Amino acid sequence: MRILLDVMGGDLPPCELVRGGIAAGHQSGVDILFAGDPEVVRAALNAHNEVEGGCFTILPTTQTIGMDESPVRAVRSKRDSSLVRGLIALKARDVDAFVSPGNTGAVVAGSIFTLGRIAGIPRPGIAASVPTVLGEEILVIDVGANVDCAPAHLVHFALMGASYARDVLRISHPRIGLLNIGTEKAKGNKLNYRAFELLEAGPLPFAGNVEGHHLLTERPVDVVVCDGFVGNVFLKALEGGVSAVSDLLKGSIRDSFRAKIGGLLLRPIFSVLRDRLSYQRFGGAPLLGVNGVVVIAHGRSDAKAIESAIEVARCAVEADLNTEIGRGISGWSTDGG
Amino acid sequence: MRILLDVMGGDLPPCELVRGGIAAGHQSGVDILFAGDPEVVRAALNAHNEVEGGCFTILPTTQTIGMDESPVRAVRSKRDSSLVRGLIALKARDVDAFVSPGNTGAVVAGSIFTLGRIAGIPRPGIAASVPTVLGEEILVIDVGANVDCAPAHLVHFALMGASYARDVLRISHPRIGLLNIGTEKAKGNKLNYRAFELLEAGPLPFAGNVEGHHLLTERPVDVVVCDGFVGNVFLKALEGGVSAVSDLLKGSIRDSFRAKIGGLLLRPIFSVLRDRLSYQRFGGAPLLGVNGVVVIAHGRSDAKAIESAIEVARCAVEADLNTEIGRGISGWSTDGG
Repeated sequence: MRILLDVMGGDLPPCELVRGGIAAGHQSGVDILFAGDPEVVRAALNAHNEVEGGCFTILPTTQTIGMDESPVRAVRSKRDSSLVRGLIALKARDVDAFVSPGNTGAVVAGSIFTLGRIAGIPRPGIAASVPTVLGEEILVIDVGANVDCAPAHLVHFALMGASYARDVLRISHPRIGLLNIGTEKAKGNKLNYRAFELLEAGPLPFAGNVEGHHLLTERPVDVVVCDGFVGNVFLKALEGGVSAVSDLLKGSIRDSFRAKIGGLLLRPIFSVLRDRLSYQRFGGAPLLGVNGVVVIAHGRSDAKAIESAIEVARCAVEADLNTEIGRGISGWSTDGG
Repeated sequence: MRILLDVMGGDLPPCELVRGGIAAGHQSGVDILFAGDPEVVRAALNAHNEVEGGCFTILPTTQTIGMDESPVRAVRSKRDSSLVRGLIALKARDVDAFVSPGNTGAVVAGSIFTLGRIAGIPRPGIAASVPTVLGEEILVIDVGANVDCAPAHLVHFALMGASYARDVLRISHPRIGLLNIGTEKAKGNKLNYRAFELLEAGPLPFAGNVEGHHLLTERPVDVVVCDGFVGNVFLKALEGGVSAVSDLLKGSIRDSFRAKIGGLLLRPIFSVLRDRLSYQRFGGAPLLGVNGVVVIAHGRSDAKAIESAIEVARCAVEADLNTEIGRGISGWSTDGG
């Protein structure tokens, strides 16, 4: 298996991302094709005592799509960017999967233009794994690919999320929940009400509405469905809540001697906590619904996060996920909401 | 000043809520009119060594609107509920403000039916104060009154939030942010894009888009504007993130002796933390845009939260908030988005 890693568009320098690619290659035996400035990649390989060739190869490119660029314009104009060239390599089956910590909108737009959509899925969705207190992750889809959804799109997210949970995460009967602001059917906005009706009438194991304040502590479902705007707000608010507690604790511990001792004794626990809620362990969010395995890593991804994103890609390829999604959608038609 | 407290519809028993009313009465010198079953209120007053009369009086009612009842139906059919009778008392100016920890939808619907809207505000909004790491709160509006908004509604929320921040929270030049999934203008959904344009062109000090992951740690603005569905998801996700960390910490501390000692030494800090992020201190969310001061307390409100909600109501009455909002809206017209 060969996985392409776009090392140019992330927040951290390519050298750090190459390190993640090397670690993934050694850990799981996949070959890595690094897309980016060949000089920079070569230097990074050397810095980590590796050379070009064998399982680590380079796709030389000259352009980079920045985080703040307009996605569609960037994808259209920067044809020699690591992002576009990487997707073309995936389309040509030179690689089995594509991983990028770059501009999310550009990865989504580029994937749709280059790879096309799976038949029956008008809107691909990004599925993020969120760690919970109970250990097992919870899958949230969509977290940002579509900011204006119709009810049927949420049904497609449910279907793709269920496929991913079953075929990649190995949850035998994934339960689906609809992210809402109350648990009763009548709660929420028009979009959710109609999506609830469609899900209720469909073949998936639909558990009804779920609310954000107990998802991480009770994990009532395996897959949470929402439109991309709401899903993105949800993820960032979770991150904000966790950061707030962590900042308050750190600040308070610095301020008192007694607390410093307490903090030292608790240090191993804080490190487990950080690990459990870390984006590094959950570094890759697959873009589901396009013809090819595309994994979006966090913009701030470091080597560890990249390693984790490549592992997500490897598992999706192994599970032949897209074939499963195609099979699922052909067995279920929705009227468009 | 006399404030009505609906003691029947909360999650906790009326006796606990009456205790909060008594504390608020003693603390700030307001008179409290308790709406509810007179036997129950009288018993609660006696249990706390108070008697009916003077600053603590009773509005006897026979019905209760439950948390799961359909708001509009409940408000229409339960005319002798503490909620409806309380709002009628506010309309008749028997009291200066109304506070309830009951069914939020019913308080919103009942307030609109009974009190009417401030001219120029088609959609009232709920403004929640969210604690931040930096100490000062941040105001989020709307957090659940309107789940399907037009761009102009977000502009009205901004205007009402700015009034509240200036006149009640005493922030001299409140900065407004739009909750979004990126900071650039082009980010987000259609609703946000259009609201951004309206706010940018308007007279308020608009600071642009803000994202949820840094609101509590950096407090980039004083008022955050969003539609009620998104705002409610945002609040619950924050709560979920904080609970997750707290649960993980508690669980880990129980599991190890060393950590138990660390936890004991850190106990004062945990208690400050809990206080800082507690809904009890931030127990009251005003419903802005109706003709009367209405404060919605958290359904799980205990006596302390009720005391805090009554304080929110007292400050809004003192600031003559609704007159200020009316003045603000008449000075600014929007085309409906």
